[in-house]
Amino acid sequence: MTRLPGSEAPLPVPGIRLGAAAAGIKRRDRDDLLVIEAVPGATCAGVFTRNAFCAAPVLIARQHLAVSPRWLLINSGNANAGTGDQGLADALATCQMLADLAGGSAEAILPFSTGVIGEFLPVDKIAAALPQALAALDEAGWERAARAIMTTDTRPKMASRTCQIDGETITVTGIAKGAGMIEPNMATMLAFVATDARIGAADLQVLLAQATDLSFNRITVDGDTSTNDACVLLASGVASAKPLTPGTEAHDRFAAAVFEVCGELAEAIVRDGEGATKLIRIQVEQAANVEEARRVGKTIANSPLVKTAFFASDPNWGRILAAVGRAGCADLDISRVSIWLGEVRIVAGGGRADGYTEAAGAEVMARDDILIRVTLGRGAAEAKVLTCDFSYDYVRINAEYRT
Amino acid sequence: MTRLPGSEAPLPVPGIRLGAAAAGIKRRDRDDLLVIEAVPGATCAGVFTRNAFCAAPVLIARQHLAVSPRWLLINSGNANAGTGDQGLADALATCQMLADLAGGSAEAILPFSTGVIGEFLPVDKIAAALPQALAALDEAGWERAARAIMTTDTRPKMASRTCQIDGETITVTGIAKGAGMIEPNMATMLAFVATDARIGAADLQVLLAQATDLSFNRITVDGDTSTNDACVLLASGVASAKPLTPGTEAHDRFAAAVFEVCGELAEAIVRDGEGATKLIRIQVEQAANVEEARRVGKTIANSPLVKTAFFASDPNWGRILAAVGRAGCADLDISRVSIWLGEVRIVAGGGRADGYTEAAGAEVMARDDILIRVTLGRGAAEAKVLTCDFSYDYVRINAEYRT
Repeated sequence: MTRLPGSEAPLPVPGIRLGAAAAGIKRRDRDDLLVIEAVPGATCAGVFTRNAFCAAPVLIARQHLAVSPRWLLINSGNANAGTGDQGLADALATCQMLADLAGGSAEAILPFSTGVIGEFLPVDKIAAALPQALAALDEAGWERAARAIMTTDTRPKMASRTCQIDGETITVTGIAKGAGMIEPNMATMLAFVATDARIGAADLQVLLAQATDLSFNRITVDGDTSTNDACVLLASGVASAKPLTPGTEAHDRFAAAVFEVCGELAEAIVRDGEGATKLIRIQVEQAANVEEARRVGKTIANSPLVKTAFFASDPNWGRILAAVGRAGCADLDISRVSIWLGEVRIVAGGGRADGYTEAAGAEVMARDDILIRVTLGRGAAEAKVLTCDFSYDYVRINAEYRT
Repeated sequence: MTRLPGSEAPLPVPGIRLGAAAAGIKRRDRDDLLVIEAVPGATCAGVFTRNAFCAAPVLIARQHLAVSPRWLLINSGNANAGTGDQGLADALATCQMLADLAGGSAEAILPFSTGVIGEFLPVDKIAAALPQALAALDEAGWERAARAIMTTDTRPKMASRTCQIDGETITVTGIAKGAGMIEPNMATMLAFVATDARIGAADLQVLLAQATDLSFNRITVDGDTSTNDACVLLASGVASAKPLTPGTEAHDRFAAAVFEVCGELAEAIVRDGEGATKLIRIQVEQAANVEEARRVGKTIANSPLVKTAFFASDPNWGRILAAVGRAGCADLDISRVSIWLGEVRIVAGGGRADGYTEAAGAEVMARDDILIRVTLGRGAAEAKVLTCDFSYDYVRINAEYRT
């Protein structure tokens, strides 16, 4: 059996401890509060949602990011979004509570929330559970942490990589959550990645922006960009005395490990997309530029007609062709466009490819991990986008989510 | 009981005859072929899909529009899209067949197809049924015609208006089809509107472009712009010796009748959207410009999370707020945004409106015709968008459509 991406037990990261607790924010029987602590001197990078109605904790976390944060305070079950000034006061209050208990300043804490939009944060419940979360702080706390941040997720999402730098083993470990309201723009619902590498905050921010652009920003479950998307990369620096410098081979090896962790977490989110039964990889090639390639990929990925055809395992290639045609490529020469389903070419020369048979298409459609490849014949740029199919369960989950 | 828009028996239009027949294109037991004939000297306007992979008949119809067409030849059950050069040859062949039978030139015929993408047109079946369609030509043929062009539609869509011009009664009657792959860009799946007014072809084209922009281009069922969208306006001119001139009061009265017929047909398409249980009217006001207002409206209208919440009658206003936030309004001041559900204000000042109660929201949500009103506080532009909810049946219909 092949291992499901994002399911392997994560490696501890020296200098990073995690502690979860059950605060009873939405349900009584599960962890929903998480503290992540980094050693003094750690660096931190973060990227956040571009949704104009971004949540109160996103506004606070953005401000505090400038002040060398050492703690992340995360809750599930309540998004603290659409909550106005009260939401900001609540997020700040929880930061202050953690600061009082942990002995730092409130500015050293980044708050994150995920869950229902529009309800006030139950600050008292968080206050009551915070001491337990701090008492649980442990370098081995990653898997329990991955479970504490889940909402409609059906499984925790975790990934680790190691690389060798100056004879030392450097670890990169991350966790993520998210199954619906997923078309990240800057970052995903919530992803927390940590490393023991030493790297300056500015360089870490550049690296995180690149990593999220190639991973979380290339996935979509339902085209809905959340109010609470955030991705944080913590570097404890305990592994090495010498900071990593961009442009060096060591930095490249480290960057590759970060890219792989983010990529694996992004894929795990799509695989666990609400109601998903299939993973769909969309690869757009020969585009005029990367923006065009990504736009074509996203148009296919967000088409309800394409997604329901994949749910039905129906090689309804006309729906893919129609999505490419409406993706806004100016003066697209459709005679140069080809579309493949797995290794089977389905469209060429403006219509059905010569020799294509429904049987060949149906064989690919029966898989649970399917590649759609589109060559536009316009240039050399390419982009990959991941999505999932659209099933009865997507409707069920989202018609029932609050009730 | 209130009358369902688009359901009333349509008024005949002097100078326009319609004839339907059963060609057995996809199913044996129903009409699927339609000929619409205008008297000599009639004028014609048309708008077509902007999908780059537009269907063969769309390419032919666009060319023939320049040559004073007198006949429309329409089939359902097969879109003749994604069919390459063979598709073009097939569409031209059916035009030639009708020309031979009716005694005109092939260039005087506009072909239209709707149905499955990617299968070749059964030209022989159309040839065999064409004489029956011609024999059936009748000014009273509108309702039978509206049924002949249906695919996944559950009911025919028809509308009529009259206006008085120079003491004469002028009629405008139209039919439309479409239930899925609906986010028209220039025109809807298929809509045919006719009048006995006399109006020049160039003026008719300007009027049709305005009418579709305010009706069919403001609706969405699933965000998928079809390969076959087309809207045609025929003016037989038999009612009056004097052509209508833009800028006159008579033209304005006539334009109002055309706008109302197109608007009623567009609403009928959304009401019959695949799996739809509710009509959702989205009105965006105080936008910086019309394009921004329309973009915000379309973002709300295409959000699967908003649409499933309406299916569940759940006043989940956070999802509407999140959609407004990701609609790409630069520097949106969320403190100036308000959102209403019917007459109930749900969002103000960046969060839940003072005094809003779930009970008040739930009362509005229980209706089957619901207004979402958004005021952006940025300017004076506004736009209306119509959509429907997203139900289990949308997934069922589209998972079963070909199989």
